Amino acid sequence: MRIDLNSDLGEGFGPWTMGDDAAMLSLVSSANIACGGHASDPETMLAALEQAVARGVVIGAHPGYADREGFGRRIIPMTPRAIGAMVAAQVGALAGVAAIAGARVAYVKPHGALGNLACDDADVARAIVGAVAAQPGRLAILAISGTVLEHEARAAGVQVFSEIFADRAYMPDGRLMPRNRTGAVLHDRDEAVDRLLRFLETGQMPVAEGAPIKLAAQSVCVHGDSPGAVAMALALRDRLLAQGVTIAPFLDVG
Amino acid sequence: MRIDLNSDLGEGFGPWTMGDDAAMLSLVSSANIACGGHASDPETMLAALEQAVARGVVIGAHPGYADREGFGRRIIPMTPRAIGAMVAAQVGALAGVAAIAGARVAYVKPHGALGNLACDDADVARAIVGAVAAQPGRLAILAISGTVLEHEARAAGVQVFSEIFADRAYMPDGRLMPRNRTGAVLHDRDEAVDRLLRFLETGQMPVAEGAPIKLAAQSVCVHGDSPGAVAMALALRDRLLAQGVTIAPFLDVG
Amino acid sequence: MRIDLNSDLGEGFGPWTMGDDAAMLSLVSSANIACGGHASDPETMLAALEQAVARGVVIGAHPGYADREGFGRRIIPMTPRAIGAMVAAQVGALAGVAAIAGARVAYVKPHGALGNLACDDADVARAIVGAVAAQPGRLAILAISGTVLEHEARAAGVQVFSEIFADRAYMPDGRLMPRNRTGAVLHDRDEAVDRLLRFLETGQMPVAEGAPIKLAAQSVCVHGDSPGAVAMALALRDRLLAQGVTIAPFLDVG
Amino acid sequence: MRIDLNSDLGEGFGPWTMGDDAAMLSLVSSANIACGGHASDPETMLAALEQAVARGVVIGAHPGYADREGFGRRIIPMTPRAIGAMVAAQVGALAGVAAIAGARVAYVKPHGALGNLACDDADVARAIVGAVAAQPGRLAILAISGTVLEHEARAAGVQVFSEIFADRAYMPDGRLMPRNRTGAVLHDRDEAVDRLLRFLETGQMPVAEGAPIKLAAQSVCVHGDSPGAVAMALALRDRLLAQGVTIAPFLDVG
Repeated sequence: MRIDLNSDLGEGFGPWTMGDDAAMLSLVSSANIACGGHASDPETMLAALEQAVARGVVIGAHPGYADREGFGRRIIPMTPRAIGAMVAAQVGALAGVAAIAGARVAYVKPHGALGNLACDDADVARAIVGAVAAQPGRLAILAISGTVLEHEARAAGVQVFSEIFADRAYMPDGRLMPRNRTGAVLHDRDEAVDRLLRFLETGQMPVAEGAPIKLAAQSVCVHGDSPGAVAMALALRDRLLAQGVTIAPFLDVG
Repeated sequence: MRIDLNSDLGEGFGPWTMGDDAAMLSLVSSANIACGGHASDPETMLAALEQAVARGVVIGAHPGYADREGFGRRIIPMTPRAIGAMVAAQVGALAGVAAIAGARVAYVKPHGALGNLACDDADVARAIVGAVAAQPGRLAILAISGTVLEHEARAAGVQVFSEIFADRAYMPDGRLMPRNRTGAVLHDRDEAVDRLLRFLETGQMPVAEGAPIKLAAQSVCVHGDSPGAVAMALALRDRLLAQGVTIAPFLDVG
Repeated sequence: MRIDLNSDLGEGFGPWTMGDDAAMLSLVSSANIACGGHASDPETMLAALEQAVARGVVIGAHPGYADREGFGRRIIPMTPRAIGAMVAAQVGALAGVAAIAGARVAYVKPHGALGNLACDDADVARAIVGAVAAQPGRLAILAISGTVLEHEARAAGVQVFSEIFADRAYMPDGRLMPRNRTGAVLHDRDEAVDRLLRFLETGQMPVAEGAPIKLAAQSVCVHGDSPGAVAMALALRDRLLAQGVTIAPFLDVG
Repeated sequence: MRIDLNSDLGEGFGPWTMGDDAAMLSLVSSANIACGGHASDPETMLAALEQAVARGVVIGAHPGYADREGFGRRIIPMTPRAIGAMVAAQVGALAGVAAIAGARVAYVKPHGALGNLACDDADVARAIVGAVAAQPGRLAILAISGTVLEHEARAAGVQVFSEIFADRAYMPDGRLMPRNRTGAVLHDRDEAVDRLLRFLETGQMPVAEGAPIKLAAQSVCVHGDSPGAVAMALALRDRLLAQGVTIAPFLDVG
């Protein structure tokens, strides 16, 4: 059994920090690094990239709406053309800084409201996929399993990997249960890890109603934006390792 | 006789425009395109890149201090490390957008206060050169003739080209006469073009005091930020063509 | 017969300009000055305020979403509390700069997407009205005639004035015909001015279907963001003056 | 014996926080609240203002260079006119938000690099004083004791109060010893408090060389940007109270 753990990193800005990048980099195998849109700036990118390189963690770009005040969590009305340009500029910016850190951006995972929109809106998903496909280096996309983004990436011939959430309930169609529904979030940490372990063994994910479904997933998204979240990620990792699961990047960038 | 004409383009932001990009793109052979630092945003970059591609103009990145309010004309105190990260992020951003426009960034010319500082400050010049040298694609640097930036680029093995100004007086050491000195700017357009033509023939540039000096220059910087500036650039181009000068990019990106 | 002409001014940012403030200030009696949200910065505000003072034009604050890249034309999802804080901060910022220009902010007119939303969304309208009502100096609100914003201002005891558009068609309920409907914009300048003159005489406005309706309006909104718009505003003013209409501020700030 | 404690607050931005505002508001009698320049945004201002009102803490505006990435710690080259407009806009913005929180801005303390520059540069100091003097409500200025800013405020008839630092060494002319000199910072907390207590008793401050000097100071600046800083401020407050010192605002805004 083998799985990747990914987390959002480099989400400080100027004098401000968010989460504990150093702690998370010792836990995850892939790092989604902010690109100066919803968070970060060139020097913050450089620090995050250097830490990721030092830890041997695979680097992904984490583009989001250029809205630091809203942390990329608000939908900013934009044409698909403008979204494509924005994603290309952010991925390029991170790649540019990565070059001076001796690092390479290997994949792209859209952030926040942009990522949510790309789950359902084909125009937005295609704009993101097009921007990624145009970049040099054959970047992959990390998408939420079962979404329009995953579908559009595949349709465009872009390598796509899927992530699941250890603490979120799933629907029979493979999508996440919306947060406003009862039971959408698994609050019992042990139950969440047990579910994840069974999924890794069987490839089957229990759903809200009906029989478990088959999900393909190469990565688990973990959060590090609070001390509690870091502790949760650490516990998850320890349980996985104790069960003989190998934690390794979904992308072999050797 | 052959020379490149370069101009700063893509310097709008959101709803605001600056200069007449379309007019200038019909005059120049190289375009220094703003990268979202002192001006521009991803959609503005995309529009400028597409126009440059349509005109067959060679594309350079024009990074500047991330200070739109001051248009990159104010020195923002930064460490060399931060300057390197900033330049890398901006060049990367333009390269990312260029990828979706089917274009390629071929060189880098620092803007405004950053460019001025790089004329004299070796730490700043090295930070810029290091950021450029790390990028893929062997980017060149376009520097003002005789400056520390030119020297540091050469020392680092980065291909460097030099630009001169048709309307500025030169000093015996090959540097521009500071603007606050009498005679620093040639206000007579014909005199300026005559001087340029003689320079193209002889490689010798008249200076403030003493004998003309030898200058190596592959490009002339023209401005397009006002109707008067566009007319000036047009007149310069016409005179050059009338004298049999070929206007062509300093970089062969064929 | 008497009417106010109002226009959006001070909408430059840093090195960028928009429209011809000096020309418009010679035409209008009230100036809606941008506050650093969708456009402007402190020095741009100061320049606009000084010009307005010199012309004796009444000054209004023109707050909008803090989205320069989108020029305040995009709806940024925000809570009413956040909208109230944003409007208060922008109105306060303009008032602060006005103080050093010896000027006084007399009214508030919300800009762009924020203004449009306030036409229909009572929560947004109340947030704006609350922010305005809390400011010192008994600021008025300039609203589009017949909107929720006008209603909420009145309900809160805030002095409210209404504006109409010379070149837009009206619906039987007094609202503007949406721009996507045929006939929404009056393209014939003379027809537009004739309609306005009849309205000033009778207080009756022709509508898309059915009999003219009674509208109360104290101001006409004119645009100055292009040479054509300035010419249009000038023609409107000339026709009004030729018909004996007095152009004067809706607010007496003696 | 009586003294004010002041601290910088409201220095978050969007999703990011800085320091522990709630903890500091239980310790200080005056709060310097960021105004959207070096930090903060309207909603962050509103939250800080509401907390300050709830605690009965006197509110000051804390304007700084509009440079969030540099946290206002970098000198941004600006004309005195532009500095005046910037300070007026920021003080006005905070006053605007304060109005909806039922609060009043009572004084102004410039932040970071702007504050440092105002200690020595008479043009900058006059620009700040002029912007403050023009505001309604007779705002005071909180300056570092013995600086050009204090002098210019006094010369302009603006009420000015002086602050001292418990942990910084003083020079014979009453200025702070520059941080790069040995002994500039008092690292022994007890020694620092002892010195402060003697100063409160005698009005005399020991200096680097020579006899103690007479300093007038109405406030002590305490920091809260780290857990260690909060602990330090708490210890200082406890020692002061234990010695019978009354901690009370320098301004009576009853």
